[in-house]
Amino acid sequence: MEKLLRVDMSNLEARFEDLPDKYALLGGRAMTAAIVADEVAPTVHPLSERNKLVFAPGILTGTTAPSSGRLSVGAKSPLTGTIKESNAGGISAQKLASLGIRALVVEGKPAEKGFYVLVLSSEGARIEPAGDLAGLGCYELNRRLWEKYGKNSGLMCIGPAGEAGMPTAGVSTNDRENHPGRYAGRGGLGAVMGSKGLKAIVLLCDKVFEAPVAEPEKFKEAQKLLSKAILEHPVTAQALPAFGTAVLINILNEAGGLPTKNFSAGRFEEAAKTGGEAMAEFCKTRGGKGKMGHGCHPGCIIRCSNIIPDEKGEVACAPVEYESSWALGANCGIGDLDTIARLNYLCNDVGLDTIETGVTIGVLMEGGLLAFGDGSGAIALLDTEVRNVTPLGRIVGAGAAVAGKTFGVVRVPVVKSQGMPAYDPRAVKGIGVTYATSTMGADHTAGYSVATNILKVGGFVDPLQAEGQVDLARNLQIATAFVDASGLCLFTAFPLLDIDYALPAVADMYAARLGRPFTVADALEAGKEVLRVERKFNEAAGFTKAHDRLPDFMKYEKLLPHDVVFDVTDEELDTVHNF
Amino acid sequence: MEKLLRVDMSNLEARFEDLPDKYALLGGRAMTAAIVADEVAPTVHPLSERNKLVFAPGILTGTTAPSSGRLSVGAKSPLTGTIKESNAGGISAQKLASLGIRALVVEGKPAEKGFYVLVLSSEGARIEPAGDLAGLGCYELNRRLWEKYGKNSGLMCIGPAGEAGMPTAGVSTNDRENHPGRYAGRGGLGAVMGSKGLKAIVLLCDKVFEAPVAEPEKFKEAQKLLSKAILEHPVTAQALPAFGTAVLINILNEAGGLPTKNFSAGRFEEAAKTGGEAMAEFCKTRGGKGKMGHGCHPGCIIRCSNIIPDEKGEVACAPVEYESSWALGANCGIGDLDTIARLNYLCNDVGLDTIETGVTIGVLMEGGLLAFGDGSGAIALLDTEVRNVTPLGRIVGAGAAVAGKTFGVVRVPVVKSQGMPAYDPRAVKGIGVTYATSTMGADHTAGYSVATNILKVGGFVDPLQAEGQVDLARNLQIATAFVDASGLCLFTAFPLLDIDYALPAVADMYAARLGRPFTVADALEAGKEVLRVERKFNEAAGFTKAHDRLPDFMKYEKLLPHDVVFDVTDEELDTVHNF
Repeated sequence: MEKLLRVDMSNLEARFEDLPDKYALLGGRAMTAAIVADEVAPTVHPLSERNKLVFAPGILTGTTAPSSGRLSVGAKSPLTGTIKESNAGGISAQKLASLGIRALVVEGKPAEKGFYVLVLSSEGARIEPAGDLAGLGCYELNRRLWEKYGKNSGLMCIGPAGEAGMPTAGVSTNDRENHPGRYAGRGGLGAVMGSKGLKAIVLLCDKVFEAPVAEPEKFKEAQKLLSKAILEHPVTAQALPAFGTAVLINILNEAGGLPTKNFSAGRFEEAAKTGGEAMAEFCKTRGGKGKMGHGCHPGCIIRCSNIIPDEKGEVACAPVEYESSWALGANCGIGDLDTIARLNYLCNDVGLDTIETGVTIGVLMEGGLLAFGDGSGAIALLDTEVRNVTPLGRIVGAGAAVAGKTFGVVRVPVVKSQGMPAYDPRAVKGIGVTYATSTMGADHTAGYSVATNILKVGGFVDPLQAEGQVDLARNLQIATAFVDASGLCLFTAFPLLDIDYALPAVADMYAARLGRPFTVADALEAGKEVLRVERKFNEAAGFTKAHDRLPDFMKYEKLLPHDVVFDVTDEELDTVHNF
Repeated sequence: MEKLLRVDMSNLEARFEDLPDKYALLGGRAMTAAIVADEVAPTVHPLSERNKLVFAPGILTGTTAPSSGRLSVGAKSPLTGTIKESNAGGISAQKLASLGIRALVVEGKPAEKGFYVLVLSSEGARIEPAGDLAGLGCYELNRRLWEKYGKNSGLMCIGPAGEAGMPTAGVSTNDRENHPGRYAGRGGLGAVMGSKGLKAIVLLCDKVFEAPVAEPEKFKEAQKLLSKAILEHPVTAQALPAFGTAVLINILNEAGGLPTKNFSAGRFEEAAKTGGEAMAEFCKTRGGKGKMGHGCHPGCIIRCSNIIPDEKGEVACAPVEYESSWALGANCGIGDLDTIARLNYLCNDVGLDTIETGVTIGVLMEGGLLAFGDGSGAIALLDTEVRNVTPLGRIVGAGAAVAGKTFGVVRVPVVKSQGMPAYDPRAVKGIGVTYATSTMGADHTAGYSVATNILKVGGFVDPLQAEGQVDLARNLQIATAFVDASGLCLFTAFPLLDIDYALPAVADMYAARLGRPFTVADALEAGKEVLRVERKFNEAAGFTKAHDRLPDFMKYEKLLPHDVVFDVTDEELDTVHNF
């Protein structure tokens, strides 16, 4: 019997429960959404003892399904006030699933402020005082945790930002080399973890493919098909392994949709120096520990991750993703990859979401705190201000909306107080619809219309036209909610959208894993149900269609080079959730 | 013909327009609400060129009606995101009305950041560069403006906080001694003024009672009745002139509803040292310029204002009101009146709302930035951090909600991001209903249930019981919206509620002023219409019944000494706007 593990930080007790029947079919985002919606009142303060933090592997996580090791983390978000799910790769989700834990629910908070480590193994759960681990950055923390608990431990932890309750703090998970750079970054779930006095969760489990599968033979057949599809699709088979996600830098720059200097232009003159090709060149010329085609967890056959080397061939940061390279690069007018890698490293170390941090620094640059392009100024913001939890560091850690409010900035690229990712919605209108209508605030992963607008995956919808974007964003949000429940990496969506046997193969794996019928129609219905649950929570928390909007300035300020505004009408946006 | 003056800061042009018929019956808050609702899209960024700032005297302002010199200022609020009206005494509103200006609409913003002074006189309007007035605190600014433009000029201005776009910056107006302490403080209207590059508005007009009155004889008769009522009611005739508004400190402390140390208790052991009686004692023993029973504008017969002397008899601050004494006193654990007066002076000088500033400092104290009771630390926050516009100063100026978000504080006493005034809603439940359901965010003046809960004006509703509070708050919000449109000081509401001929007298003055029939029923309908207009704006801006709620902690954390929570149900709150 798979379990739900409930950890009450008020009395430092952990209790295994049988997984309730109503959650039997749920994994990943579907599981975190259901538990948060069932157990957390939508009006609670996100950092109060009444919020809960839920960790859940996907349904396919811990099986041999390719690229299925995703971890979902959920709670009410201190950044947005919405329900929130953020997911990450790394090695922890498969261990959690292999321990038979379908959901880990952390609730309450210690009466006296203090930090603890939760240790999970096949022998059960125990909670230990964090001692001098409290206050550490994630790199040193991970080193110490492996030293104490053994190499190969799965680690989920927070840095000083999460301890201080900063609303853009993420939850770090480690990879096989113990880099803390696989983040459930968005929405401040690290602050929720910090509010509960939980510095780290340690998973002592060497097994990674031990989730129970009801019909192993059937499963294997389907798994082969999905693997074939992944290895056939040009994006997952070629572009991502070769250049990582940052292959998109040059593509978006060419498309005029790479937000530059706080979303004031769609092209960045130094973009090429910050993209995947430049990273591959670094790895080639600098050698050492640099590596492209790195897999963030066992069983990944895409391997989009990387290890970016510094000048001496030592690890500068692992990984540097597209979103991070953009947020800390083009969006801040910074065109130097070493600086970007350093900023990314610092985000990982202090424990902040790279996207939100870059968007926030961009707003602060517009507000006059420092100049666009000031890399050393940006480094100081993280390494000095955030690390030492100064008032300015707290502004940086509070996100772009707060930065805008404190610095009197009008052009603040957020939806539901969450900073926009690396696609300007005026030039990539499908992603604008997703930003506006996602249950998560501005979030590219919630319905990655860029695939169809720019990469021509799943057909083509002209990115510069309003027409067709709403249907696209709706369909992708539904499909994505299912993928996020499955534990599959979102990049499997490229073959799922283009190769006709791929999605049926995933449905077959679900059926085989759970030992019950499961069709493609069931998958889409499952996706819809996730969105309904999330949206209902948000409505009760006060969100209306008036919040499903982009910031005003994007409706009248034209973006170069295409000289476009965001012109999908409010009426159209209001139909996204009609399904 | 009375006029609407439109000032476009984009091209520095001012234009007089005939007052449109649809605004003929509107004054004060009714006027600002109507113009903002008609001309500002609810989704604009409050500091963008698309917001508008509206100044309007009340219908009775500029007449000889007693205590009728109120100025309304309105815009979309950078603090709350709602429509906002904040009103103030001082000498400007009567001058505006006497110049025949029923509304002053400031729109646009200069293409290049810079500050200007708008000068209004019977000869028209002109816009002059502010030159070295920019950056000045309001005290020095007012001195220089009187020096340049003549004593007796009406001044409406902003301090460094408004220039920097801080969302809790207020609009200062001066009194007859040129103290800048009469503030339209709430909701950040000073930041809107700053965003438009307007440092000050100077009114060159010695006349104060020249608003046109259609039927002067009829007006005088009604006026006598209202004066009689004001001079008969014990609150307006005795308590307020003798001890000022701060007479409430001891009363609320006794009632267990004086929020202490960030709303963690209902009684403050040092309260007596900070109340109106202590202020009167200061004036008596220190002498010098100290004065109770000070009137903030010509024709006020209540004279609740004061001039608090320092140890040498010089002006420490004028005035120190109840709300300010509480916010900067009990709420911060500060029991020293000299310190409170200094903090109040500093708020006035840098240009911040005293209520929001005190609530914000209380939250920062809870967040560990400084200790409760640390007066010199609080002084440094204003005199050093805000004045120099440091990052920490920007947090202070951004209000309690942002302070809570940046410092990870759970107990944040705000509604719609606006800090709660000086009555704990758990012990004074009627005001809790107003805080929750007001169109303005937490605002005591929007429906002052304290009158009936504590002062037994307008009957009595037990402050500790949920029963009856919704009807009370509804009726008071309607009546208040009318009073705020009339230009009468809200304190006339005490006789209006208790003395049967008082409200008919006000209706008669309306009729005589406008030369058309106007009844008590019309007055109440006018109040309702203001609320409808404001609420419709807020709904379009994204506010729902889920925002008509107090912070979660007040529903489960019991307040001493009465050991009470806020227990008016959500369902009851949702009926407040049923009228």
